[in-house]
Amino acid sequence: MQHKNARLQQVIDAIQPLDEAAMAAAKKRQDALAKPPGSLGRLEDLSIQLAGITGKVHNSVDKRRIVILCADNGVVAEGVASAPQSVTLAQTINFTRGLTGVAALARQFGDELMVVDVGINARLEHPGVINRKIAMGTKNLALEPAMTYDQALEGLFIGVALSEQCAAEGVSILGVGEMGIGNTTTSAAVLSALTGLPVEETVGKGGGITEDSFQRKKEIISHALLRYRPDPSDPVDVLAKVGGFDLCAMTGVFLGAAVQRIPVVVDGYISIVAALAAKRLCKTAASYMILSHASYELGYEQAARQLGLEPMLLLHMRLGEGSGCPLAFQVVSAACGAMNRMGTFAEAAIDDSYLEEIRKGDHFTVQRRDRI
Amino acid sequence: MQHKNARLQQVIDAIQPLDEAAMAAAKKRQDALAKPPGSLGRLEDLSIQLAGITGKVHNSVDKRRIVILCADNGVVAEGVASAPQSVTLAQTINFTRGLTGVAALARQFGDELMVVDVGINARLEHPGVINRKIAMGTKNLALEPAMTYDQALEGLFIGVALSEQCAAEGVSILGVGEMGIGNTTTSAAVLSALTGLPVEETVGKGGGITEDSFQRKKEIISHALLRYRPDPSDPVDVLAKVGGFDLCAMTGVFLGAAVQRIPVVVDGYISIVAALAAKRLCKTAASYMILSHASYELGYEQAARQLGLEPMLLLHMRLGEGSGCPLAFQVVSAACGAMNRMGTFAEAAIDDSYLEEIRKGDHFTVQRRDRI
Repeated sequence: MQHKNARLQQVIDAIQPLDEAAMAAAKKRQDALAKPPGSLGRLEDLSIQLAGITGKVHNSVDKRRIVILCADNGVVAEGVASAPQSVTLAQTINFTRGLTGVAALARQFGDELMVVDVGINARLEHPGVINRKIAMGTKNLALEPAMTYDQALEGLFIGVALSEQCAAEGVSILGVGEMGIGNTTTSAAVLSALTGLPVEETVGKGGGITEDSFQRKKEIISHALLRYRPDPSDPVDVLAKVGGFDLCAMTGVFLGAAVQRIPVVVDGYISIVAALAAKRLCKTAASYMILSHASYELGYEQAARQLGLEPMLLLHMRLGEGSGCPLAFQVVSAACGAMNRMGTFAEAAIDDSYLEEIRKGDHFTVQRRDRI
Repeated sequence: MQHKNARLQQVIDAIQPLDEAAMAAAKKRQDALAKPPGSLGRLEDLSIQLAGITGKVHNSVDKRRIVILCADNGVVAEGVASAPQSVTLAQTINFTRGLTGVAALARQFGDELMVVDVGINARLEHPGVINRKIAMGTKNLALEPAMTYDQALEGLFIGVALSEQCAAEGVSILGVGEMGIGNTTTSAAVLSALTGLPVEETVGKGGGITEDSFQRKKEIISHALLRYRPDPSDPVDVLAKVGGFDLCAMTGVFLGAAVQRIPVVVDGYISIVAALAAKRLCKTAASYMILSHASYELGYEQAARQLGLEPMLLLHMRLGEGSGCPLAFQVVSAACGAMNRMGTFAEAAIDDSYLEEIRKGDHFTVQRRDRI
């Protein structure tokens, strides 16, 4: 799309399509590997996608990083969340202590976390948390738009710059996670606004709320959409009116990953809504994305369909935080391993001359029955 | 079940249920971890299952091994397979060279392979291949039963002994793979015989065969089932009449893993049919099983439903060999990581005294807005 903001348009223009020649070479290599063509399924697709992203047939994902965007949402004042707002701050600190779900899994696999405050409702200075605070949380979207248009743009550019920093630091694959009590409400609102889907198809129960809160959550979103009429043709307007700072920055990280040609894992419901906003700003950005697990939050499947992508893991997870990224990274690592380590049909041929040679080596003998 | 073979009955009797007390303790710990209850989905279930298997709340899967059962099938003479029989031998050797799909993935993640010849149609002595050859391939089940009842039992006991050896060598998790041209034919026949499902619901196109071969494959299986009438109440009879040596030994590995209390990954179509045979011999054996990816071979889903288990990976893989085991091991490793490394709500509490303490440390400051 052409965007009215010139700086954002520059970002969009910097996103280039995947390298078709590298993808063709990767496909050719896959077809030469000693297996029925296509039998490694998504692992083959991933290796080809990676080639398109990096321009190289052989890739690895040795430096894996999850960017976690943390922010508060004014709408929690309406009782739409199962946890108090202070949990955003607490869990942000716990990421740095290695105690949360994503932190535990990242430690298990040696992945890095990049914890970013883009709008926690508390003053926080911490060496483990990058300060990119836009404001002390958003406004309550039940009463007024969540933020200004300029704040939404600021969030996007923060995300773009974070991806740039990751690229400069040699990150080979990114994951996008979040922490922000109330952000399944903002995500459902953004998803409905972008797609026109009714709230019945986008609003789930988040961390686990009561039936009353669930009804209230749907009403608040419906009313906000009716009242502010976010423009579905401009994701920035949508993010500003009914989104959150985390969603804005995540959208920016997705765009920035595409600019920097880094594969990027979409993890969970909030992440996939931001990914969809990024795709609406720049269709090509989706070529750089990889879905982790199928979230069981209502609306995830709708968003995946709109993105045109399919998750790889079926784990009934709904924690958020980017907690599916560490396992998704392992799947991508597997794709690299198959591509880099498998033998071609030529290399794996066990013909008579090979058998003759190894027989001479005397450490093992092979005889086909028809020759005995 | 009570089995007429006393030695097999001893194996069945040695399989004990999961440790309920350990599972309750693991569930209690999961519920205390700082996350909405159940939000880590299958990772929580896996950690509880592991506790039931080992009797310990905290587990790890540091020594991971894939047992690959290799054997030939006489039925390939009927043209039911896409590759020549010599590929069984060639790929068995290639496992030891690290060139096949499962070998490449195992190397990527540091998993061990245990390559076992239970009936390759060639003389093979190789330091990297364990010789447990029952015969030079099975008979052609289009003409006569694949093997004798005693050979099927021999295959089972070989598998049980392999699991025993793995336990003695300190293996913490097992995967079960195979190599045997023609074994989607035998697997479909066993699945139909065990379940009564028509061949239309169990027979797929394997490595990729022509429409003619596909029809022939279904006819051969139907005729064999009609002619030999394998007894669905005795999986040994089924395996003997229409199975293969790989299937028999795999069934034994599943039983043996349960005897040894080792978690065991079921990978792909042939593996899941053997797993179902094991469950029919001893229902409790299924408690020790974990499904890797959803195979796209027809019949997989039916077998999974009969097992009462759900796959964790959605990768459109259909290579076999046990190639989904390395990634399944990583999922189990993630489950261990979450259980062992996450903080409890108590440990992760960020209360005022905590904030006070870290403020004193002077390396970061936190203030809630309501106190500013």
